[in-house]
Amino acid sequence: MSTSVENEPAPRRRRGRRPAGEVRAEVLAAAAALLFDDGMAAVTFERVSAASGASKTTLYKWWPSPGALAAEAYFDRVEQALEFPDTGDVETDLRSQLLAFTDLMTHDRAGQVVRELIGAAQGDLALRTAFAASYGRPRRDAAIRVLARARDRGQLREDAPLDVVVDQLWGACYHRLLVLDEPLSPELVDRLVHNALHGAAPAGGAAR
Amino acid sequence: MSTSVENEPAPRRRRGRRPAGEVRAEVLAAAAALLFDDGMAAVTFERVSAASGASKTTLYKWWPSPGALAAEAYFDRVEQALEFPDTGDVETDLRSQLLAFTDLMTHDRAGQVVRELIGAAQGDLALRTAFAASYGRPRRDAAIRVLARARDRGQLREDAPLDVVVDQLWGACYHRLLVLDEPLSPELVDRLVHNALHGAAPAGGAAR
Repeated sequence: MSTSVENEPAPRRRRGRRPAGEVRAEVLAAAAALLFDDGMAAVTFERVSAASGASKTTLYKWWPSPGALAAEAYFDRVEQALEFPDTGDVETDLRSQLLAFTDLMTHDRAGQVVRELIGAAQGDLALRTAFAASYGRPRRDAAIRVLARARDRGQLREDAPLDVVVDQLWGACYHRLLVLDEPLSPELVDRLVHNALHGAAPAGGAAR
Repeated sequence: MSTSVENEPAPRRRRGRRPAGEVRAEVLAAAAALLFDDGMAAVTFERVSAASGASKTTLYKWWPSPGALAAEAYFDRVEQALEFPDTGDVETDLRSQLLAFTDLMTHDRAGQVVRELIGAAQGDLALRTAFAASYGRPRRDAAIRVLARARDRGQLREDAPLDVVVDQLWGACYHRLLVLDEPLSPELVDRLVHNALHGAAPAGGAAR
């Protein structure tokens, strides 16, 4: 009997046989669907388990909290839309990535979702840590890799502060959204990129 | 009888006689004390009325919600610490104001309070509107006035985007705090100011 079972094709839902990477992808997709449809409160291990077929034990093993899962699910869901182009022209590439980002924040449910995640994180240290680790810093790292290639091509100064450029582009957008409650526009993107690259001091660089 | 009452000195708590500006200042101070001691949940019209002696009717007349009162009380409390110096050297002035700001965010209870206000505002449109109107935009206006004087002295380009400079200095700090969950340092302040004024492109300005 056991030999015959082993020879049968694994049933679709036979979870033990599915590769961990596949289970993980399904969990993240299920969590993102709950997050985007019903908000953070919907992302519980109970509901994600029911929606993905992964056991709650697995979820507890992989994520310290439902908030950490929600943060990673958000990253997973928007990663493709926020890919960094690399055409060889840093000013064009920054502008087109920022346009994709501001478009997502403005016209997609992602804008409300990220607002909810960042808002909740301010009163919840574990969620803040998870959001920074799963979203904020990986996105910054991706931007810094693109900026470092531009620097290597001579399009940025040798000593250009790449982390600061990230704060002054994407961080500036978050400032408009979270603190000033103002919309993002393509015109703002142009002005942010121009000032981060060329500065507000007069040409020649003497600000004094 | 009524004549004799009128001739008596007004009792200390005879509210009708106090100038509105004085009452308003006491209300804001009482609300700030509750906010800084016990957090946003403590700022109710009930408790602020009891602590300040102003009637709840007055509070309802002056503020649309306790959140709006909390936002203005925060502004009122930190305004002096965040004054903009104007020594005539824009780079020095920006650096010293940002050091005062990052010091307040890091070493004062104000850091937790503003985090709580901005966090709660993300799920509460009325609070977000009130916080932007009572804190975010007045602070930006104050910074822009200082930057405009620097531009008039020739220390910034004629067409320098002053609102963008604000996003790229104070907004960049909020990005570190709220999204990246990273501490602010004097060294970061130097790098933010330098890049906002001089840019990341090579000298000569050609980023392509």
